Amino acid sequence: MAFDAIETPFGKSDKIVGGAATYIAWSASNFTRPIHQISVVGYDFPETELNALRARGVDMDGVQIKQDQKSFFWSGKYHLDMNSRDTLDTQLNVLADFDPVVPPSYQDCEFLMLGNLMPKLQLKVLDQLQNRPKLVVMDTMNFWMDTAMEDLQKVIAKVDVLMVNDSEARQLSAEYSLVKAAKSIMAMGPKYLIIKKGEHGALLFHGDRVFFAPALPLEEVFDPTGAGDTFAGGFIGHIARSKDISFESMKRAIIVGSAMASFCVEKLGTARLREIDHAAIEARIQEFVQLVNFDITFN
Amino acid sequence: MAFDAIETPFGKSDKIVGGAATYIAWSASNFTRPIHQISVVGYDFPETELNALRARGVDMDGVQIKQDQKSFFWSGKYHLDMNSRDTLDTQLNVLADFDPVVPPSYQDCEFLMLGNLMPKLQLKVLDQLQNRPKLVVMDTMNFWMDTAMEDLQKVIAKVDVLMVNDSEARQLSAEYSLVKAAKSIMAMGPKYLIIKKGEHGALLFHGDRVFFAPALPLEEVFDPTGAGDTFAGGFIGHIARSKDISFESMKRAIIVGSAMASFCVEKLGTARLREIDHAAIEARIQEFVQLVNFDITFN
Repeated sequence: MAFDAIETPFGKSDKIVGGAATYIAWSASNFTRPIHQISVVGYDFPETELNALRARGVDMDGVQIKQDQKSFFWSGKYHLDMNSRDTLDTQLNVLADFDPVVPPSYQDCEFLMLGNLMPKLQLKVLDQLQNRPKLVVMDTMNFWMDTAMEDLQKVIAKVDVLMVNDSEARQLSAEYSLVKAAKSIMAMGPKYLIIKKGEHGALLFHGDRVFFAPALPLEEVFDPTGAGDTFAGGFIGHIARSKDISFESMKRAIIVGSAMASFCVEKLGTARLREIDHAAIEARIQEFVQLVNFDITFN
Repeated sequence: MAFDAIETPFGKSDKIVGGAATYIAWSASNFTRPIHQISVVGYDFPETELNALRARGVDMDGVQIKQDQKSFFWSGKYHLDMNSRDTLDTQLNVLADFDPVVPPSYQDCEFLMLGNLMPKLQLKVLDQLQNRPKLVVMDTMNFWMDTAMEDLQKVIAKVDVLMVNDSEARQLSAEYSLVKAAKSIMAMGPKYLIIKKGEHGALLFHGDRVFFAPALPLEEVFDPTGAGDTFAGGFIGHIARSKDISFESMKRAIIVGSAMASFCVEKLGTARLREIDHAAIEARIQEFVQLVNFDITFN
């Protein structure tokens, strides 16, 4: 849970609320409650933001508020393609010495989403759970492959589902073909691998099985920040609601995640996620059904 | 119908048989016969190649054989991503003064596929048909946008379905968003637009409707040459077989085209297209069904 300042070809934002855990919670709380949040913020993080999430069933017992430090801050600028971006500024602040503590009331956790963060911290959370969750899903990024590969490998070995984007899958596996990359990464531990391809959709691999979910072709992408986290929130939210961790359920969860991500990019930051209701989500999921639905009976 | 010499990260080929019309004919002849071919070759083009296609129901009356000229020759080198390539050599030869003539026996043509070639020549063929075909499909490329935009616009205005890749759609429309690009291009004439995204699949636009067909994730892409032409051949082949030009039929045709293209890239040149039979094609189409099939009923 953090602050972002975002520059896109459409304009420039002030410091706005962001962070992987923020997007995940906004997204997942459409499908499952309560959500047991673990994060850290500084004295500058607005209480109203925490309350807005509390009102959606997000339990803040695991969110540490550091009264003498500022929240994490990231600033970036997107290129015209809206897929690539440059980091302009990163201020770790509270993240520099974050030591996540899992409250006793979180010990019943059945479904764990490890949002993108230092692998060491992801592992600390997982290791504090006395009973292993039914499903552990992990998101990560190339930065940890560059700077903390050993730690990263340790977490990857312990999770059920790993989410990375296509270039990260290639980097992690040293394979160019995504099919080969998937085999190599699943041999590192995760039984399921989700490769996110942004505007080109997402792939789910499991053993020899593969499922492809498209991204919705959008007239305008206003701000891609948090789209991957929002996808993760929709995915784990659907799994937690259905309590079904089969491959078929994960396929549905990816469609739900993709639908949520398609909302996220329509407005700046979390703005669009704060507006949508169940009817909007249902309608958007139907658009995905229409997008890929075909009857191959030949006539 | 031409010669190619291809260099990929996997190796280098000698001069092999290629050309848009060659790939289209190999692909389409799995679905519909006869095919009325229009093209030009030189004295160096092997008679065995023409006979191999004749044996598949490809009528060669419209293929001119120039005894004093060489066939068109292209040589290119693919980058590691297998999506981008550099042209190493282009020898127009017979194409320099090609004047396509539609034989009288071709006048009953119901479905016309204008393969990628100088727009002027595509127009010449279309204009020679006394009755407009039920469906005219056109493929083209960025080279004609750079060098013959005025001619290109004239053909585009007369066709029903245009096929381009994503960067060409952006160039043609001066819109970055593919949804906006599609609207802009359909306003130029075609009622249907297919945007090919290579390994990222293909989009079909028609009015406000959109359909997405994935590409099959492949362990290895050996040679992408001709994949777009093979896609076009599968598309028009399916349409000609079904004689159904509805949006639903075009969705199926795009899946068929994508399945054919997925074969094409597995071996060098037309090699894989010469091996496959109906059973292999049916099995591959089922892989596409499995790839995108999901049941969104929530439980």
